[in-house]
Amino acid sequence: MKLTVLGIGSATPVLDRNPTAHLLTTEHESILIDCGEGTQYQILKYKLKPSKIRYIFISHLHGDHYLGLIGLVSSMNLGRRTDDLHIFGPRGLAEILTLQFQCSNTFLHFKIHFHENDTEKAQQIWQTDLLTIESIPLSHRIPCCGFLFREKPQKRKIIKELLPQGLSIEQLKGLKEGNDICDIEGKVLYKNDALTKPADTPRSYAFCSDTIYKPDIVEQISGVDWLYHEATYLHNLVKQAHERYHTTALEAAQIAQQAGVKTLLLGHFSSRYGSLQEFQTEAQQVFGNVVLAEEGKTYEIKSTKTTNAG
Amino acid sequence: MKLTVLGIGSATPVLDRNPTAHLLTTEHESILIDCGEGTQYQILKYKLKPSKIRYIFISHLHGDHYLGLIGLVSSMNLGRRTDDLHIFGPRGLAEILTLQFQCSNTFLHFKIHFHENDTEKAQQIWQTDLLTIESIPLSHRIPCCGFLFREKPQKRKIIKELLPQGLSIEQLKGLKEGNDICDIEGKVLYKNDALTKPADTPRSYAFCSDTIYKPDIVEQISGVDWLYHEATYLHNLVKQAHERYHTTALEAAQIAQQAGVKTLLLGHFSSRYGSLQEFQTEAQQVFGNVVLAEEGKTYEIKSTKTTNAG
Repeated sequence: MKLTVLGIGSATPVLDRNPTAHLLTTEHESILIDCGEGTQYQILKYKLKPSKIRYIFISHLHGDHYLGLIGLVSSMNLGRRTDDLHIFGPRGLAEILTLQFQCSNTFLHFKIHFHENDTEKAQQIWQTDLLTIESIPLSHRIPCCGFLFREKPQKRKIIKELLPQGLSIEQLKGLKEGNDICDIEGKVLYKNDALTKPADTPRSYAFCSDTIYKPDIVEQISGVDWLYHEATYLHNLVKQAHERYHTTALEAAQIAQQAGVKTLLLGHFSSRYGSLQEFQTEAQQVFGNVVLAEEGKTYEIKSTKTTNAG
Repeated sequence: MKLTVLGIGSATPVLDRNPTAHLLTTEHESILIDCGEGTQYQILKYKLKPSKIRYIFISHLHGDHYLGLIGLVSSMNLGRRTDDLHIFGPRGLAEILTLQFQCSNTFLHFKIHFHENDTEKAQQIWQTDLLTIESIPLSHRIPCCGFLFREKPQKRKIIKELLPQGLSIEQLKGLKEGNDICDIEGKVLYKNDALTKPADTPRSYAFCSDTIYKPDIVEQISGVDWLYHEATYLHNLVKQAHERYHTTALEAAQIAQQAGVKTLLLGHFSSRYGSLQEFQTEAQQVFGNVVLAEEGKTYEIKSTKTTNAG
């Protein structure tokens, strides 16, 4: 599970700082989260593959979070994409895209499935073979939600070199489920944990942008591996942050600390800041493991421990 | 009168090649012509002033010609613009922008005047203090027009060092209009051309993108100083060009030659071409003064001769 950051900026444009877009990739699929203006050029720049994107999640309809979407989807069409695309966003997004396709007389070679987010509910909104996705209600100036991506629990892993010969497919499946190998009378021949090891802990990524400091998200995102949280301002501008329904670096760190996440990723920096180092320093006052998002950088979201899943 | 090219690409995105946008500046005003995705970042990159843009002309609603508009206008609003903005575009543009403003709950601090282009008529659609603007009907896959910007004729210029003392304001105004200085009985004291020189010839710029080869625009753009004409393909792909309602470099040069323009500026190059030199070589087979548009470059549109205006 890897996360590539494509934009760290906020609403006011800054040269060499793109608006929000994150690309989450697993073994089988790519998921784009937010898609500010110019995201398709960032995808080109960092040699990523738009054809692999099957899901796009849009947090809210401020321009710095979705204005690149119509261009990206149009380019997918020019690139002769035929795979279905699922787009999740607030009410209004489907109408905007549909109107733009009408005006440009665009006929898509692939099907778009629009899914309207209920931005007020924390609920599972989708699942893929590998992941579940939940909406995280946020509090911003317009309807907005974050997204929580969790790997589904995986089965136990067979240790091939320890396997006795002659096991049936059913017995191998049973091992992955945690069963012992027994003879026909039910006597245990091989204990499960002699032939298997626990699955990796499911990894998780929570994306929270944009929002005022909102501690009631803590329960839902408790213990996630990586938390991306917006940090538009430093804390000396907390009043301005709250007026604009944004969060400070210190507050984002408080959320991370309360939720007991493993790593906090900060982004959505206001255009007023040139150097960003102070965001890390400030956040580290209350939470140790703080990463400042960098454009084009790919972060590996690792399992932090193993469990006896299954 | 200066023209800054902000994008030379076409629909399929290419790294380091932006979609169409031209900025035409006169002494008093800036005019943006088309506004592909990322135009506001090009404006930042080349240190241009979005606050000076009073007019935006959109040729048609293919994404590579207008998707940057909503972001640019939103950023003008964040920048606390208060000056009115005039946007000219085909039917649908106002609806798209209005819907996007609604969804983002944006309240503008300035007034936008939307003007719907009749893309089928060659007619004057606006005038400023210095310019008249005409629509140029083009033939593309969706409604599309170009724009012809002409300076208004200026008055004769007084040669200050030759002026006799004691002339009244009315006499000076008369000189600019081409009148002689006479005494009260009507006897000529000073011939006009002894005290004045002709005005500069009004300059003109024609912007033609996107279109299939369309020789019936020749009459309207006859003799313009600079003609920008799209040249999406080289002529060995003329069949493909026509299927997509585009023009080849050779055809653009034929238009320039037939219209007797002074300079031909080529752009809107297909993503299939890396090097662009061949576009110039091909066009120069039929027209001498060919310029390949370069992003960030500013071209001065000069008066080519003086007339006895007035």
